[in-house]
Amino acid sequence: MADIPLPPGFTAAKMSQAQKAFEAALGADKVFFEALDRISYQDKFAIDEARHHPAGAIAPTSVEEVQAAVKIANQFRVPLWPISRGKNLGYGGTAPELAGSVVLDLSRMKKIEFDAANGVVTLEPGVGFYDLYDYIQQHKLPYWLSTPGNSWGSVIGNALDRGVGYTPYGENTKNFCGMEVVLPTGEVVRTGMGAFSNAPTWGLYPFGYGPAWDQMFVQSNFGIVTKANMWLMPEPESLMGMDVEFDRPEDLKAMVDTIGPLRRERLLQQSPSIGNWLRAAAVLTTRKEWTDKPGALDDSVISAIRKKFNIGWWGVSLRLYGREEVNKAVYKVLEKAMSDIKPMLLKPTTWVKGQPMEYSGWTGTPMTFPMQNINWYGGRGGHIGFSPLLPQDGTKALEQFQRTYARYKEYGMDYQGSFAFGERHLVNVNAMIFDKDNPQMMGRIDPFFRTLVADAKAQGYGEYRTHLDYMDLVAESYDWGGGALRKLNEKVKNALDPNGILAPGKSGIWPTTYNGERKA
Amino acid sequence: MADIPLPPGFTAAKMSQAQKAFEAALGADKVFFEALDRISYQDKFAIDEARHHPAGAIAPTSVEEVQAAVKIANQFRVPLWPISRGKNLGYGGTAPELAGSVVLDLSRMKKIEFDAANGVVTLEPGVGFYDLYDYIQQHKLPYWLSTPGNSWGSVIGNALDRGVGYTPYGENTKNFCGMEVVLPTGEVVRTGMGAFSNAPTWGLYPFGYGPAWDQMFVQSNFGIVTKANMWLMPEPESLMGMDVEFDRPEDLKAMVDTIGPLRRERLLQQSPSIGNWLRAAAVLTTRKEWTDKPGALDDSVISAIRKKFNIGWWGVSLRLYGREEVNKAVYKVLEKAMSDIKPMLLKPTTWVKGQPMEYSGWTGTPMTFPMQNINWYGGRGGHIGFSPLLPQDGTKALEQFQRTYARYKEYGMDYQGSFAFGERHLVNVNAMIFDKDNPQMMGRIDPFFRTLVADAKAQGYGEYRTHLDYMDLVAESYDWGGGALRKLNEKVKNALDPNGILAPGKSGIWPTTYNGERKA
Repeated sequence: MADIPLPPGFTAAKMSQAQKAFEAALGADKVFFEALDRISYQDKFAIDEARHHPAGAIAPTSVEEVQAAVKIANQFRVPLWPISRGKNLGYGGTAPELAGSVVLDLSRMKKIEFDAANGVVTLEPGVGFYDLYDYIQQHKLPYWLSTPGNSWGSVIGNALDRGVGYTPYGENTKNFCGMEVVLPTGEVVRTGMGAFSNAPTWGLYPFGYGPAWDQMFVQSNFGIVTKANMWLMPEPESLMGMDVEFDRPEDLKAMVDTIGPLRRERLLQQSPSIGNWLRAAAVLTTRKEWTDKPGALDDSVISAIRKKFNIGWWGVSLRLYGREEVNKAVYKVLEKAMSDIKPMLLKPTTWVKGQPMEYSGWTGTPMTFPMQNINWYGGRGGHIGFSPLLPQDGTKALEQFQRTYARYKEYGMDYQGSFAFGERHLVNVNAMIFDKDNPQMMGRIDPFFRTLVADAKAQGYGEYRTHLDYMDLVAESYDWGGGALRKLNEKVKNALDPNGILAPGKSGIWPTTYNGERKA
Repeated sequence: MADIPLPPGFTAAKMSQAQKAFEAALGADKVFFEALDRISYQDKFAIDEARHHPAGAIAPTSVEEVQAAVKIANQFRVPLWPISRGKNLGYGGTAPELAGSVVLDLSRMKKIEFDAANGVVTLEPGVGFYDLYDYIQQHKLPYWLSTPGNSWGSVIGNALDRGVGYTPYGENTKNFCGMEVVLPTGEVVRTGMGAFSNAPTWGLYPFGYGPAWDQMFVQSNFGIVTKANMWLMPEPESLMGMDVEFDRPEDLKAMVDTIGPLRRERLLQQSPSIGNWLRAAAVLTTRKEWTDKPGALDDSVISAIRKKFNIGWWGVSLRLYGREEVNKAVYKVLEKAMSDIKPMLLKPTTWVKGQPMEYSGWTGTPMTFPMQNINWYGGRGGHIGFSPLLPQDGTKALEQFQRTYARYKEYGMDYQGSFAFGERHLVNVNAMIFDKDNPQMMGRIDPFFRTLVADAKAQGYGEYRTHLDYMDLVAESYDWGGGALRKLNEKVKNALDPNGILAPGKSGIWPTTYNGERKA
């Protein structure tokens, strides 16, 4: 254990003792401290490969084992980093914020309980979208999932990180309805109506009596979610919509200003995402088929790629779910609105129950093909995302795009950007695709990312989610009242986790015990 | 100040010093400690008139004054009981849980900021539904409110107590999008994107970065909400629907089982409430016009009243908001579904923009006429509500009704009950109307209420909200894991409010400083 990464102030001997205690409590087959184990829990898309190395990992299979692990963590003051399935690859994957933490891998907790009358699933964190999809198919249940673009991850884990999907249930964190949580001191709580023994409404009414806790366990380090109820969308009678392509970068303004009001009105109940040509092209081709010039792509190359695949500079898909007659009435409104802003292409799509179904995010089918984009540059590919929040304002969106696009050119990177609607906001997701075997490129990522954060800060645009490397940087940008909300979070953190053992540094929330670890 | 109610361990001299400190900080015109002041802040509908008496009240007009008041409260250890406008009359009104508390009356904080592009209002707690309605009318803004049955209260205050309205925005607590909060130790925080200085998305994206706090300040005593963003519904192009009456108590089952799936499907986006004949009749007539017999009403009297006003045993209204063509398509589905279960009366209703508008809860118009029901018995009327949460299951709803109706008869009370839909739950709101000048009746209310709590507990049905008298009783019924969630709440309470000055006892959450005050 000589070269094992350790938390500050730790000795290898103490970690070895902790390892033995984990083995005694969980069994040796659930404890992983070999060199190869450690590597397997590192960040696959790391920008700086030297960071965020775990000391090891443990994989409990029950709530009781999670409690036992927490007890040992408190005894030895070992920081634990809980992951569900660890598949949020653009944000750090399985790796802990604080090097030397022990990964608490919950992927073996895979229980599914299904309330088919109400469309509520009670899930453990190890249940992936594929698992739940298979369960639904096998039991022929009339519900659809809300899957993210890469669906190998955990259903709960995605929602706990505020990931999104394509359907009207796409803001996955809003589908939580009651949780079971192991607190940092080892007690178990149930939230919402789960606090009322045997309440049949645990998965039906989200708030319970008094303050409601679910969102406090999202993007936080206040507890380990060992079970959560989530609402699923009833299978619709019909799915209608359109895929629409626009020719010019400037068209972004009209797209946002046309779709925004329809979304805020809730006529459009699903949250569309406007993506640029590279989002479409990067899963169809690779860069070297078009050019070997370094730096950002020329307009002539972009035009050639777009022409070959017949894609717009921007594209967006709109979808309607529900009764066929209702969808038809809504479709007419959408069709008129979108035609008015002159797309280069508008392709209608329609499905009615009984017809063969398209297997895509629109029908809640798990998928992984969007990850092909990491092959864009060749070499060992990867990406991280920069995702600030904007108002639904076409002018502001266009300015944000122009500012960001100029930075991509300045840093010699190919622009993959999207503007994803929420009900009243936009998330400007900028994927930075990179080639880990290109050291020159890898050296540019960090200054590039920091520049984008600073640019957005000047506009008042904060990120909704970020990679481990930037959790402190982003937390620092949430600066109202001298960082008053962070101070509140840390006061609660210290009250709930006096030894600071649970995910120190998550979302920039540091317990007093690791005060010195915050990055300036 | 000899007879002034005081918190445990307090002396009149110390309260007098605190009063002087409040006067020095806020000005004498914002501090109320006369006998008449105290009476005016008591519970108007109190079952036991001796309880919940405040020591006095203060009415700051700005965030800075709220902070100054909190500072003084900590200095003197005076418990403060914040109210917005104090109009939730069935739950305690202006009165504090702990006798001797000082009411922190925020009704003079009445600022309105309106983001007309996005339909977001930033409100102070003193803004009532009438104020906001007037503002919208005056500025001709294309947004509708979600008003509760009695609309004299605060918009924020209602949502902070999880009150509901009639429109698709009817679950008012879900319309919060960022708050400004004074913590019990005097610091101010802004939640969600408010934590990011000058973010234009404060009122647009509810979660921010990291754990989301808004729901932690709902039904809680963790902070004083001095400002909140709320989403408003865009004015619809059309409003369509139907008022439907059913003849027999047993029809409740089919009503729930027919409406529930349409609601869970989100075809019906507004949450209907099934009410019994007395909900309709109690605002049209009074009891003495029909009988002078004490005890629960005979079936013959009920039949006579129903016949005269042509109302069903149960009635329900369904409403659709949005584009006219869409509403027409949805209406057809609702009409078929409701006709299939054979109502005694189905009255369609329709409105299109430009036509004269019905002034009702359906159009978000503030109103107070439902409060007429307190005149039912004659004398000084009042009511409290018993409101357990059920699944959307017709059989269970009918059983709950039958059980409760039998108790109303046993305790000699006239039954006013409703089953209000949420998206996946039902709230069974039982109004206990009483005559405060009938001591025999008033003596029955408390045992009656406790019996209903125990009956519901046996079924797993917990209350979503309750009167001051029953906050501890209801909190006790949330007993999973030995009251694990309450213990978590109290751990956070003690961390945020070490002196226990803010609303001790709210929702059954007691700080250590008032440990002895919890009712068994």
